[in-house]
Amino acid sequence: MTSIDPQVVDYVHDVARRARVASRELALLTRAQKDAALHALADALEVGSAAVVSANQEDVERERAGGMVEGLVDRLTLTTERVRAVAQALRDVAALPDPVGEVVRGSTLANGLTIRQVRVPMGVVGMIYEARPNVTVDAAGLGLKSGNAVILRGGSAAGRTNEALVGILREALTAQGLPADAINLLTQGGRDAGRALMTARGLVDLVIPRGGASLIQTVVLESTVPVIETGVGNCHVYVDAGADLSTALAITINSKTHRPSVCNAAESLLVHTSVAADFLPKALAELAGAGVVLHTDARSGEYADTAGVAHDAVTDEHFATEFLTLEMSVAVVDDLDAALAHVQQFTSGHTEAIVTEDRAAARRWVNEVDAAAVMVNASTRFTDGGEFGFGAEIGISTQKLHARGPMALPELTTTKWVVEGDGQIR
Amino acid sequence: MTSIDPQVVDYVHDVARRARVASRELALLTRAQKDAALHALADALEVGSAAVVSANQEDVERERAGGMVEGLVDRLTLTTERVRAVAQALRDVAALPDPVGEVVRGSTLANGLTIRQVRVPMGVVGMIYEARPNVTVDAAGLGLKSGNAVILRGGSAAGRTNEALVGILREALTAQGLPADAINLLTQGGRDAGRALMTARGLVDLVIPRGGASLIQTVVLESTVPVIETGVGNCHVYVDAGADLSTALAITINSKTHRPSVCNAAESLLVHTSVAADFLPKALAELAGAGVVLHTDARSGEYADTAGVAHDAVTDEHFATEFLTLEMSVAVVDDLDAALAHVQQFTSGHTEAIVTEDRAAARRWVNEVDAAAVMVNASTRFTDGGEFGFGAEIGISTQKLHARGPMALPELTTTKWVVEGDGQIR
Repeated sequence: MTSIDPQVVDYVHDVARRARVASRELALLTRAQKDAALHALADALEVGSAAVVSANQEDVERERAGGMVEGLVDRLTLTTERVRAVAQALRDVAALPDPVGEVVRGSTLANGLTIRQVRVPMGVVGMIYEARPNVTVDAAGLGLKSGNAVILRGGSAAGRTNEALVGILREALTAQGLPADAINLLTQGGRDAGRALMTARGLVDLVIPRGGASLIQTVVLESTVPVIETGVGNCHVYVDAGADLSTALAITINSKTHRPSVCNAAESLLVHTSVAADFLPKALAELAGAGVVLHTDARSGEYADTAGVAHDAVTDEHFATEFLTLEMSVAVVDDLDAALAHVQQFTSGHTEAIVTEDRAAARRWVNEVDAAAVMVNASTRFTDGGEFGFGAEIGISTQKLHARGPMALPELTTTKWVVEGDGQIR
Repeated sequence: MTSIDPQVVDYVHDVARRARVASRELALLTRAQKDAALHALADALEVGSAAVVSANQEDVERERAGGMVEGLVDRLTLTTERVRAVAQALRDVAALPDPVGEVVRGSTLANGLTIRQVRVPMGVVGMIYEARPNVTVDAAGLGLKSGNAVILRGGSAAGRTNEALVGILREALTAQGLPADAINLLTQGGRDAGRALMTARGLVDLVIPRGGASLIQTVVLESTVPVIETGVGNCHVYVDAGADLSTALAITINSKTHRPSVCNAAESLLVHTSVAADFLPKALAELAGAGVVLHTDARSGEYADTAGVAHDAVTDEHFATEFLTLEMSVAVVDDLDAALAHVQQFTSGHTEAIVTEDRAAARRWVNEVDAAAVMVNASTRFTDGGEFGFGAEIGISTQKLHARGPMALPELTTTKWVVEGDGQIR
């Protein structure tokens, strides 16, 4: 681990200290105040849309000239319509219940003390993410609604766009009589700023990395601030002996091809040997027809040959890879135990699906697979805050501490115990 | 950070891998199986009591000869009666509800998918703690009940005792047909074993340090496994202008002197200037009479002189110190804002108490103090899993992620989302 430029540390700590001061004020806002502010932020973004789009065009032109692939350029691009959509997302967050102040549990003790566990904001939340300007606005909005100050370190490719967005949001906060330091963008220091953020113990309460496996790995290993790991999804679909094969086909195709670039897309297909001959030729032909590059083990390779589709030999590296593209590893397994063992070896703990009409097999899958989401007869694509009805998503946790699976507003809070008495002593 | 002896890493990883295999079996046990095992463990400890006490005497004699202070010798010592008490604690844990399988929330989505968030064990939990043999048995029992395998790294001063205890517990597990690797003691590698434990990512799901500030600081800074910080308590009692002064006196004395060596004991007394003349001479005299060494600011020092009790000048270092002995820092503050600012500067985020009959002051304290527990008119000593009615306590979290305040069985679990459908795709 190389040392961090001390000037960058000073810069980030200074931002964090101001964010902490703002966070104390945010923690005490009523829901009505926060919702009004979210609407004001949304309005300001729409009013400032032209400036945002213009700043974004600078980013897009520079990055395209620098050779950024079109998939990433698309994620980077903001149009007037997309700015309107992110503004609308802020209004949608305003419509969600306020997690702050919720009484999680409580009781009156034998001695008359009343105790209650109440949701309160985390304080200062750092987000480290890639060049996706919509994440900037989402994180700011979810942070504000949950009473947290946020410190954003977005990918530098979106630098001008993020500055334009955060400039507008901070001005709108000030106009609302709220502290601008509720929403902070790290504009200096490059990667060292991210590293200073994740080591700002006592100033930052939580860091959430959102991005590829290497970004998340760096944050997890170097951070001394508590971290929530998100988003690496090496998801499997297992077609059991007891599967309805047309259901299995629909789930396999949907899980792999509906949106291959996201973490809840499937990367591996496992098929019970007893249904392989009936299922695989058709499934592999359909996957290949949808443009999926197939990495097959010996047995599934024979069915690919039967179907006359191209394939190469799968390796353990394939099995361990989150492709995030139209690629899939395929294997035939002898039984449910073999499927469970394979998943146990290669899972990233995100989403694992079984297709079966066999109740005992479904129960074993649900109980024995260790992942944020275990699915029976459903597409892996359903692991999502929006699909789960949370109304928002700040990321999908693949760790076990604090939050597991899609995270929304309550996951951005902690709790405090409030104990009230009449002079009780022990 | 110096590197860890690779042989110690191999040893710890080997233990962790065996613990992980055991954890899969533990996760599937019914409550009845776990409770029967806990009773069997308790019985075995009572049967093996003489061997434990004899091993403990070796530890005690060696440590006493080595100059261990009597307070620590007392915590290290096991008698037949104390062995019976730790065995009884296992039976008490058996009587508690099983957190595993609890459905935390759930719903049926518009598309007919049913989703439910279910409590499941963490997997493998590491505990790093000092020479307190009762923690060995408590952690083993709470781990078993919550379906987790535990890896224990206790203070080396209790080495023989811990080996005797864990040997008995593992034998009893085997006799119950359960995996002995559910309960593991690190007996080699000294401090490096602890460091290997806290960096065993992928093998260990959670590390809980229990002990002094320096142990916890080391774990938090070096660990790459998720950590829950516990137990540093720099707790304040603030006597407000609106306090009932006899209530304030009782709470001050109880918070400081009832059991000064524990984290929920008070370390600092803040008194509103308007009641200082009425309150402090009597309070300081009573504290001094109970043997409390007083560190006073200028104004409280004058009241100490009035009362004729010894005192020295308080420093910021005193204000920042968790004494864990009969010492207390004392200051007079101008108003509630000054008290809040002082607490904000020096709190360790454990427990902060106000004494007041003024509703507005109490509400501000509850809302504005950022700590695991905020108290109104109650002794700081009540922040405790037993007092809160949890029936057990694995530690008191002073961090914001996952758990805050006393931690019992549910805090040793995570959740998984179970999604069941009939072929739903997106």
